[in-house]
This record gives sequence, structure tokens and C-alpha cells, in this order.
Amino acid sequence: MVGDRRNRSSAEVVRLDMLVEIWSDVVCPWCYIGKRRFEKALGRFEHASEVEVRWRSFELDPRAPFRRSGDMASHLAAKYGLSLEQAQRQLKHMDSMAAGEGLDMALADTKPGNTFAAHRLIHLGYSKDPETGAAIKEALLHAYFVDRVAVSEPEELARVAASVGLDPAEVADLLAGDRFGEQVRSDEREAAELGATGVPFFVFDRSFAVPGAQDADTLLAILRRAWQRSHPTLEVISAPTAAVCDGDACEMPT
Amino acid sequence: MVGDRRNRSSAEVVRLDMLVEIWSDVVCPWCYIGKRRFEKALGRFEHASEVEVRWRSFELDPRAPFRRSGDMASHLAAKYGLSLEQAQRQLKHMDSMAAGEGLDMALADTKPGNTFAAHRLIHLGYSKDPETGAAIKEALLHAYFVDRVAVSEPEELARVAASVGLDPAEVADLLAGDRFGEQVRSDEREAAELGATGVPFFVFDRSFAVPGAQDADTLLAILRRAWQRSHPTLEVISAPTAAVCDGDACEMPT
Repeated sequence: MVGDRRNRSSAEVVRLDMLVEIWSDVVCPWCYIGKRRFEKALGRFEHASEVEVRWRSFELDPRAPFRRSGDMASHLAAKYGLSLEQAQRQLKHMDSMAAGEGLDMALADTKPGNTFAAHRLIHLGYSKDPETGAAIKEALLHAYFVDRVAVSEPEELARVAASVGLDPAEVADLLAGDRFGEQVRSDEREAAELGATGVPFFVFDRSFAVPGAQDADTLLAILRRAWQRSHPTLEVISAPTAAVCDGDACEMPT
Repeated sequence: MVGDRRNRSSAEVVRLDMLVEIWSDVVCPWCYIGKRRFEKALGRFEHASEVEVRWRSFELDPRAPFRRSGDMASHLAAKYGLSLEQAQRQLKHMDSMAAGEGLDMALADTKPGNTFAAHRLIHLGYSKDPETGAAIKEALLHAYFVDRVAVSEPEELARVAASVGLDPAEVADLLAGDRFGEQVRSDEREAAELGATGVPFFVFDRSFAVPGAQDADTLLAILRRAWQRSHPTLEVISAPTAAVCDGDACEMPT
């Protein structure tokens, strides 16, 4: 009972029980794999209903062109000095890791590009409610990795946004301007301050930072550890000189 | 920066930095002494401006008559089998402890009685704002111990309430009925759940419970310990199998 802050003092009605923030990009395969692993861990966590998950913005490549020409394998091979076969093998291996989490990725067919507008859309979703923010995050990952659409294209973004119920006129207005751009940059500055150099990057109650897509068992163990830290059992600190009154009787300190 | 939750995520704007709850009665000398010691500790605490203090209800004697006849020394002597001199000596000793905290108490002259209505008034104060709640708590202690008025008397309670700006009509209405009675009982049930058998009883962030009027240095040390517990430095949990993407490059787990 003591650990349960919810139905207690005047103050804790405004306290959330646990906040998990996850920095990730919509074109980052480990982010999508990590998302599925985290969802598996959360599904097994006994306090799942008291956890708020917040997806935060991180562009893997803020200088990425609006849309890349050529396929993903050729781009990687050229950028990292790999043979086309090596690049394709890496992508295939990643596809198999994703398949292990139930994700039908075919990375060689993805259509990479700049994700700044996609992140601005995620912030638009959160400005409505947490559910819409989470829904558009998932919809964008699904569009990029499973439907293999170019999530840098305004018409594709508009379609994804409509699928989660965002207002088409508001979305068109956002895509034509720079709304929520500052919020994307703010997320990215925070990621740097917290020590993130890549994604996914999980932060539990600003108490534990977890880089990378760790397995579901590990993520569940960290959820429990973070919960214990933010919900300590009451520790009593007594002292012989601490005098109390009880009824009319007020003890004197010894 | 990491420990500062204030200017961070979507969630922490609703988080209070620290909550100190103090169960006490308005006719409890150690409570008033403990209040001064706590205020001294808080005045030296580097995060004082981020601390919310909430005074909670605890009746030392819920079955106390509306007003006791006779003086305090005779009452104590009769109840605890002391001689009148022994009772007076105890009261004098307590007066000198209070004087050490700058409080001009003369316990033999206090006018004890039932404090249920006084606690209901404190809840009325908090229903306005935290400052009014805190102000009426202090005003009631001052009235009882320093001005030596009977804080069970409706006219005295009305005077104290008016001195902190509560609306006289609303106060008269409260004193004529049972408004906020359930909140007093709820505070008292919580005190029992938290292990309080007497007062003052301090609870820091529902993390540390401190029975009795400990000295200011001890209370300051506990404030700092509780602050550290609720503001941990970020701990990074890495794993060799945790894969991240960084730019276009997605590492494979080792």
C-alpha cells in the first residue's frame, strides 16, 4: 500500500507512475525490432497499465537528401566501401532478425530519405493525445519497412497521417511549413545530453538509459528495476532523541 | 542536467520535485517544536523551493471532550497517576524545549479540547490553496500554544480562520456541519497505514518515514537523502548484444 502513490496525497494525482522515453527514427531497422521487443517486455510487465511510453525524435541522418536515388544496397555499399554482395548480405541478415520479431522487412526494397517531416508529424500526433502520437509512430515504421513506401514524400506522409485520424488540412499545412521542427530539434538535443549516439535509445524514468535493441527479457528486467527505484518501500528513520506526543502524553527525549 | 526533471519530457511538467507530508495535531507541543526544526532544516536545504510541504491531520485524542475543565497540569496528573508537581515539572520542561526553538509556550495555561473541527478547517484551507492550508495550520498552533486560546471553541476557530483570509460565512457553515470530516479520517487512516502511532510524523516522498521531532541537522540530512533517492543520476545499462543504428550503419549484435 505504501508504495502505491496513486490514491494518496494531494500531490500524487498529478504524478505518473513511470515514463519510458524511446528515441528512434522511422527508417531505423533496429528501432522497429527494438520496439517489438519492448512491447513484448511491456506486455509481461505487471505495472504495464501505469507506464507512459513516449516516442522521441532522432534522425539517423539529418543531412539525408529528401529522397535517395538508387536502391538501399547500392547506397550502403558506396557509403561504407562494401561490395554490393556484402551490403546485400547485411541487409538480408537484418531482415532475418526482424522476421524473428514478426516483422516482414525487405530492407533492400526500402526507399530511404529525409525523416524530418515524419518526426514533425509524430509531434503533431502527440499534440492531439498520446494514443495518436504512438499510432503514427507505428504507422510510419510499418509504411517504411513493411509497405516499403518513401516516408519522405508528402503524399505518403499525408496518407499515413490520415490512417491514424489526423486532420488532412492540418497535415497539409504542417507538410508545407516547419511546424514542430523545433520540437524535433529539442528531442535531438536531449538525446545528445543523455548520451545517445545511435538509436534505439531507451530511457526509463530518467533513471536508466539503455542504448540499443536489447532482448525482451533484459528490457523486462530493466522495467522492474526502474519501477523499484521509483517505488521504494517506506524506510523508517528513528532516533532516540525524537520525541513524540501520543494522546496527552508527550515523551521527553532520552 | 540529467537529474533535472523539470524542463524535460512531456510528462515531468506535472511532477512535483519533492513532497514532505507531516502528520501532526494542533495541540501537540512536539509537533510545534518539530515544525520549527523542520522549517530550520528546510531553510538550509538547497532545493527548498522545489519542496511541497503538506500538513496532515492527526488527532492525539479523537475522543477528547469538546472542552476540558480544569487546567492542563491537573488533567495530566489525574490521567497518568502523577502528582501535580510532577505534571507541572513535565510541562515546564517542555516549555523550555519550546523556548529553545523560539516558541513562547506556557503549557500549564493551554486550554485543551477536541481538535476535529480545527483539522477540518485546515482541510478547508488546503481546498483554497497550499499557502492557506499552511497558514491556518501555523495560526492554529500559535493560537493554542502562544495565545492560549481554546481551539475547540467555534468562535476562536472562526477568528483564527478569518486571520488567514478564509471566508467567514464558509467557515461558519463548516463549523456548523461535518464538512471535511472524511478527509480528516482519511489522513488518520493513512497515518496508521504508514506506521504512525504518535506525532509529529514526517514522510518524505513516501520514501522515508521519520517519527518524532528530530533535530534540524538530522531533518536536513534526511531531506538530502530523500532528494537523492528521487533524483538519481542516470545509469546506463549497456549490453554487447544491443544493436543500434547510427547514420545508415546498423551494427549487428556480436
